[in-house]
Amino acid sequence: MHLILLSGGSGKRLWPLSNDIRSKQFLKLLLDEHGNRQSMVQRVYAQIKQAQPNADITIATNTAQVDSIRSQLGDSVDIVLEPERRDTYPAIVLSCSYLALKKGVTLNETIAVLPVDPYTEVGFFRTLSRMDTALDIGADIALMGIAPLLPTSKYGYIVPGKQAAPDILKVSRFVEKPDEQTAAKLIQDGAYWNGGVFACKLGYIMEIAKRSVDFDSYEELLSRYSMLKKTSFDYEVVERAEHIAVVPYRGKWTDIGTWRTLTDEMDTNTLGETAAVDTKNTYVINELDIPVIALGTKDLVIAASPDGILVSDLISSSQLKPLVDTMENRPMYEERRWGEYTVLDVNDYGDNHHSLVKHLFLRSGMSISYQLHRYRDEIWVVTNGAADFVLDDELRTVAAGDILKIKTGQKHAIKATTDLHIVEVQTGSTLVEDDTEKFLWHWKMEDNG
Amino acid sequence: MHLILLSGGSGKRLWPLSNDIRSKQFLKLLLDEHGNRQSMVQRVYAQIKQAQPNADITIATNTAQVDSIRSQLGDSVDIVLEPERRDTYPAIVLSCSYLALKKGVTLNETIAVLPVDPYTEVGFFRTLSRMDTALDIGADIALMGIAPLLPTSKYGYIVPGKQAAPDILKVSRFVEKPDEQTAAKLIQDGAYWNGGVFACKLGYIMEIAKRSVDFDSYEELLSRYSMLKKTSFDYEVVERAEHIAVVPYRGKWTDIGTWRTLTDEMDTNTLGETAAVDTKNTYVINELDIPVIALGTKDLVIAASPDGILVSDLISSSQLKPLVDTMENRPMYEERRWGEYTVLDVNDYGDNHHSLVKHLFLRSGMSISYQLHRYRDEIWVVTNGAADFVLDDELRTVAAGDILKIKTGQKHAIKATTDLHIVEVQTGSTLVEDDTEKFLWHWKMEDNG
Repeated sequence: MHLILLSGGSGKRLWPLSNDIRSKQFLKLLLDEHGNRQSMVQRVYAQIKQAQPNADITIATNTAQVDSIRSQLGDSVDIVLEPERRDTYPAIVLSCSYLALKKGVTLNETIAVLPVDPYTEVGFFRTLSRMDTALDIGADIALMGIAPLLPTSKYGYIVPGKQAAPDILKVSRFVEKPDEQTAAKLIQDGAYWNGGVFACKLGYIMEIAKRSVDFDSYEELLSRYSMLKKTSFDYEVVERAEHIAVVPYRGKWTDIGTWRTLTDEMDTNTLGETAAVDTKNTYVINELDIPVIALGTKDLVIAASPDGILVSDLISSSQLKPLVDTMENRPMYEERRWGEYTVLDVNDYGDNHHSLVKHLFLRSGMSISYQLHRYRDEIWVVTNGAADFVLDDELRTVAAGDILKIKTGQKHAIKATTDLHIVEVQTGSTLVEDDTEKFLWHWKMEDNG
Repeated sequence: MHLILLSGGSGKRLWPLSNDIRSKQFLKLLLDEHGNRQSMVQRVYAQIKQAQPNADITIATNTAQVDSIRSQLGDSVDIVLEPERRDTYPAIVLSCSYLALKKGVTLNETIAVLPVDPYTEVGFFRTLSRMDTALDIGADIALMGIAPLLPTSKYGYIVPGKQAAPDILKVSRFVEKPDEQTAAKLIQDGAYWNGGVFACKLGYIMEIAKRSVDFDSYEELLSRYSMLKKTSFDYEVVERAEHIAVVPYRGKWTDIGTWRTLTDEMDTNTLGETAAVDTKNTYVINELDIPVIALGTKDLVIAASPDGILVSDLISSSQLKPLVDTMENRPMYEERRWGEYTVLDVNDYGDNHHSLVKHLFLRSGMSISYQLHRYRDEIWVVTNGAADFVLDDELRTVAAGDILKIKTGQKHAIKATTDLHIVEVQTGSTLVEDDTEKFLWHWKMEDNG
């Protein structure tokens, strides 16, 4: 079975830990069975591998998230890059074309599509094989139906009809986000939540795709991506299918989207350098290097990251998004393909003259690609480790204590030969957009991405 | 009249804004009449000047606070530096000796001693002249008696006897921190709070001083400072005086020592880059460059500085000190004679190899004295402004974009010729104590402190 995971979304609801680049699914706030911190993406990946060791995984996502996925999952997954944000229908069509036309997956193989971040159990992913069975006995599309816990108006409902096989039912109709009273009645009638998980044959989607856009290769579809209808897969495909089956899943399933739902699932009340004294139902997550003290607080979430500090009543935390939407600060922390960086200091001296200080960490063997900056000088101080460094095609090895001067317009790249720490001081017009020009990697060292 | 202000105390109760170096009296959390932020020290200084434009002010303090005083009050005050922390009796004796032996103040002039940080009104300082009158009509020592607001056990009480002149009373006795019931009775009998403010003739103290230590010059007393009894002036002098008068003050007076008392006096609920939504009785003070969002909180103080982040119930905030006492973090922000610095980043790479990044700001005309470091290299990147820089006696001018490399053992100094910003990257054993050796200023440029 080929799994397509949809990874999108901005991270405003879990600010300041998430930001435009770092979506909630990449936050390492959960614990794995060894007590190590893991992200929602890493948890889902591990659970899939446990349920289906041979599952072939493709993640459909946008440019902003590629580095986080590579950093957290390595090269164990394929990535399909959406040329622009459209909706789930174009993203799934693109991913299926990738499987069919680039990877050579045959059209009669089963694909399953699911969000990248359900908070659930291994059993959830084991249910996928029963969905495969539903296709074998005649369904065009099989949906996972999640046994509802309460009559919420947050989700869509799947109303089942007749049983088609043990634990496989025909779908009678869909009800999108009903009011609570209606939801209660639907649940009484045996309806399920729609968790956005479905399976079908690859050929089924490819046929629909080719009806809407003309393409013979994956590259051709990529170039015509904007012609794919900006609509949801549910609306465009699922609701128009003739034979739809629902396969119930009766275990734990949560949509972790706010601080309140996240803290419900955290195994600890504090993360990071934190002291909490006389507190009740208080969660402190501190990603900064300075201590957080919570004293006598109640029903509170306190979260600190290089992007900012949130102190919120647990219930009020759901009102966070519109507030964060109005903020225009740049992300101060980013996980990158090659490691991570934190912005330490930003200064505006007027007259379009700024300075910006970063701490970069590159994992051993990783490199930052060949590039130049149009409006700023950079000074890199290597504070730990060693690297190969190229400046205008000149290669040299550098180590702790070395100072690398990169003037405006000079092409430069670095490859860490050990774990590498650099303090970077930018001066000039550091706040200008479109300052950086990247080049094809034409240097002796192999590229790491 | 000569005023001696006592400036001591560590800043644990108002952590993270105050620290070992930055005591509460230097925090700019109040507003002056123009709406500019000012510290308690600046407020007291301005009020003294308003009440007594010709007042001559000497501040007795320790090394840690000198830079903050100079930075906030400039050269408008004299500073008497206590060679070690002892108590108020030695500090006052030293200050009086400074006035008598260094400044040539005559022994029949009046001195008034007061804490540097009462939160009060101009009328408080106008009361000092009535204390002078009390000395003229025969008192050895005149105390200010503050009209009590409530029967607290926090303060000492002065019980007055007969009236000596209008609004000048003889002191009958002192009661040190009575229980609340006793306090209530004392207040009924007309007792006043002892706010630690008193006046006497300079000669009165000098006579007592010379009885306890033998000295002829200020320098001689300085060198014998450790021989002065480690005791309070109240105990050693006031309570042993024969004729003591009390002069009532009936205006506002508060001892701002905890977050709760401080927030009571703040004119605003938020300071710094802050959004507070649906909050009640919540104070947010943010000294960081990243935003703080408070959402739906109640009865809370939130304070963020380079040293750390506090989130405390307003009542619980009085329990802060013991918690902060256990922390051993270095101060991450310091106000210095020449400007200020913030520590941006500290990294420990093991094997006694560290890096530390600072942002330094020097005010135009100010300089950092000639020094070397024994265990670390420093790289300074000038990000804005211009300066004269000396490295091993070589003078050169530097400006934005310049990189200054200072190897272990190299003597260096800098003098800002405009407002100056520097990003400093230290590598080596940056966490070693006693790393810095300072030198006499033997360079062409004049020293600024």
